[in-house]
Amino acid sequence: MNILIADSFPDTHRLELENLGHRVTMNPALDEHTLTGAIGDHDILVVRSTRVNAATLDAGTGLRLVVRAGAGTNTIDCARAASRGIRVCNVPGANALAVAELVLGLIICIDRNLADNVADLRNGIWNKKKYSKSRGLCGQKLGILGMGAIGLAVAERARAFGMQVFAVHRDGRDRATAARMSAAGITELESQEALLEECDIVTIHLPATEKTRGMVNGDFLARMKPGAMLINSSRGELVDEAALLHAIETRDIRAGLDVYHNEPAGGEGDFESAIARHPAVCGTHHIGASTAQAQTAVADGVVAIIQAFENGEVRNCVNA
Amino acid sequence: MNILIADSFPDTHRLELENLGHRVTMNPALDEHTLTGAIGDHDILVVRSTRVNAATLDAGTGLRLVVRAGAGTNTIDCARAASRGIRVCNVPGANALAVAELVLGLIICIDRNLADNVADLRNGIWNKKKYSKSRGLCGQKLGILGMGAIGLAVAERARAFGMQVFAVHRDGRDRATAARMSAAGITELESQEALLEECDIVTIHLPATEKTRGMVNGDFLARMKPGAMLINSSRGELVDEAALLHAIETRDIRAGLDVYHNEPAGGEGDFESAIARHPAVCGTHHIGASTAQAQTAVADGVVAIIQAFENGEVRNCVNA
Repeated sequence: MNILIADSFPDTHRLELENLGHRVTMNPALDEHTLTGAIGDHDILVVRSTRVNAATLDAGTGLRLVVRAGAGTNTIDCARAASRGIRVCNVPGANALAVAELVLGLIICIDRNLADNVADLRNGIWNKKKYSKSRGLCGQKLGILGMGAIGLAVAERARAFGMQVFAVHRDGRDRATAARMSAAGITELESQEALLEECDIVTIHLPATEKTRGMVNGDFLARMKPGAMLINSSRGELVDEAALLHAIETRDIRAGLDVYHNEPAGGEGDFESAIARHPAVCGTHHIGASTAQAQTAVADGVVAIIQAFENGEVRNCVNA
Repeated sequence: MNILIADSFPDTHRLELENLGHRVTMNPALDEHTLTGAIGDHDILVVRSTRVNAATLDAGTGLRLVVRAGAGTNTIDCARAASRGIRVCNVPGANALAVAELVLGLIICIDRNLADNVADLRNGIWNKKKYSKSRGLCGQKLGILGMGAIGLAVAERARAFGMQVFAVHRDGRDRATAARMSAAGITELESQEALLEECDIVTIHLPATEKTRGMVNGDFLARMKPGAMLINSSRGELVDEAALLHAIETRDIRAGLDVYHNEPAGGEGDFESAIARHPAVCGTHHIGASTAQAQTAVADGVVAIIQAFENGEVRNCVNA
C-alpha cells in the first residue's frame, strides 16, 4: 500500500512497513493545511497530533484508512471520513503506561514541590523549611475518573504507594476491567460527586466528548476538598480554566496539568496561558504519551493495524 | 521523665508524652551550640537534625537517653555518649515511605524533565518538541544499593512501574528482607560493579560510614552507562561531587540529589553548590523524610522508645 506518515515515527517501524512491501512517505513537517495538498492518492494516512480536516479527507483520492498513532481522535474529522467510507482507527492503550508515569510524577512533583525546589537550588537558595511541608502519598485518597487503560495503570501504581484508590461505580464493566479494579483494591463510590468530596487527589482519564467538555467547572471544583489536588492529562477542553483559576486562588486547589485550552498544535512557540503560568500549577507540555517506550508500543500498534487492514480486517475502528 | 525536644515535633505527640506523665520542654530553635547550655538535667533528649556534640553530652548532668527522631545518627557523637553511659536510639524505617516517594518522584522528574517543563510554561514558552524525548520508566533497569527499609520500599514502587529491579547479592540476609526482595522480583547481581554496568538508573540507600563515604567516585561513575541516572537521597558524603560533575559533563550522567556536601544545617540560607546549581541536576533541599505521614510515623516511634525506656527496655540502640 501507499502510506503517508504526517508526523514523526520510529525508523525501525518505517523500515518494518517497507520490508512488508509498503511504499512509505514520511513528512513530519506537514500541518493541517499543507497535508491537504500532500495527501494525493495515498491509501493510508498515519498521524499523531496533525489535524485531519474535511478538506484533506476530500482531497485524498485513494484514501481508505486514517491511523491515529495514539488514542485521541478528536483531531480527526471522523464523521466526514465515515461519510466518504474512510475508516479511522486508533491505537488505544499503548500510551497508557507513559501517561500513568507522568500522572504519578505530577502528583509527587506537587506534593514535594519539586519544580520550586530545583529552581531555588539553581539560584543558590537553600530553604529546607519551606519545602518540608508535604503530606506524602501513603494513605492519601486518590479518585480516578475513567477506568480505561490509563486510569487502571494509574490505579495500579498508586496502589504500590499505599494510596487509597476510588472510582465511580458503573454497571456492566467488562470482566477484565472489573478484575483489574479488584486487584488494585479500588473502592467504588456511587457518584462522581461522592468521589470529589471524598478524595485528596482527583485525576481525569476520560476522552473529550460532548458529555465531558467543560465537566471540571465551578460546581465540580467546589465539591473538592480545600487544598485538594487536580490532575488533568486527558484533554484541555475538559477543564473550565477560569473556574480552576478561581478554585486555585480561593480554595488552595493545586493542579498538575499536561493539557490546556488552545495549546499550540506545533512543537514550539509562545504560550500565554494564565493557568499554565500560575505558580500553583505544575504544568507540562502535553507530553503524556511522549516516551520512547510508548512510541514503540504505539508504532507496534500502527503496523499491526495496517497489516490487519491489508488482510481485510479493520481493527480499532472509531467511525464505523 | 524530664524530656527536652530540640527540634520540631508534632503537638499531638508532645501531648501524648505529657499525658503519659512526662515533663516536656520543646525548643526547636536550639542549635548544636545553644543546646549545650540548654541540656541541664534533662533525662532524655530528642533531636531530628540538630547536632549533639561531646560538649552537650558532657554538660547533660542527668542525660541517659538521646532519641534520634529519624534514622541517621551521624549528627550525634555516639562514641562519646557510649563512654558516658548515654544510650543513643533511633527510629529507623519510619521515613522509608517518604524517602521512597521522593526517589520515584526524582526519577520521573528527570525522565520527563518536569522542573524545566514548569519553568518554561511559567515563562510563556511552549516546547513540546524539547520535552518529548523521554525514555519512560517501564522496562528500565533500576539498581538499588542498600536493601534496608528504604531500598525495599523503592523496589516495591519501581516494580509497579514495570521496572526491572537489581540489587547486589549478599549472604545472610534476614528472612523478612529476603522475602520482600523475592516478592518485588529483585534480581541479585554478584557485585556492585556488575550492577553499575547493568542498570539505567542507580539509587543509593546506605548510611554514611567509613566504608561508604566517597563511594560514588570516578571509578563508580565510569562504570555507569552513558546517560544513566544517579539518585542520592542518603547522605551527601557518599558522593564525590567533583567526580559527579565531571561525569555529568563528559558522560551525560543525570543526577537527582536530595543531599549535598556542606549542606546548610538550618532551614534557610544561601547555598552556593556547583552540583546543586547544575542544570542537569534535579535537586531538593534534604526533604526525603519531610512528609506529614513520615513525621507522624517517626513521632509514634519516639513515643514508643521513651515508654520502653521507662520500662527498662532499650530499643533500637545504636551505641550499645
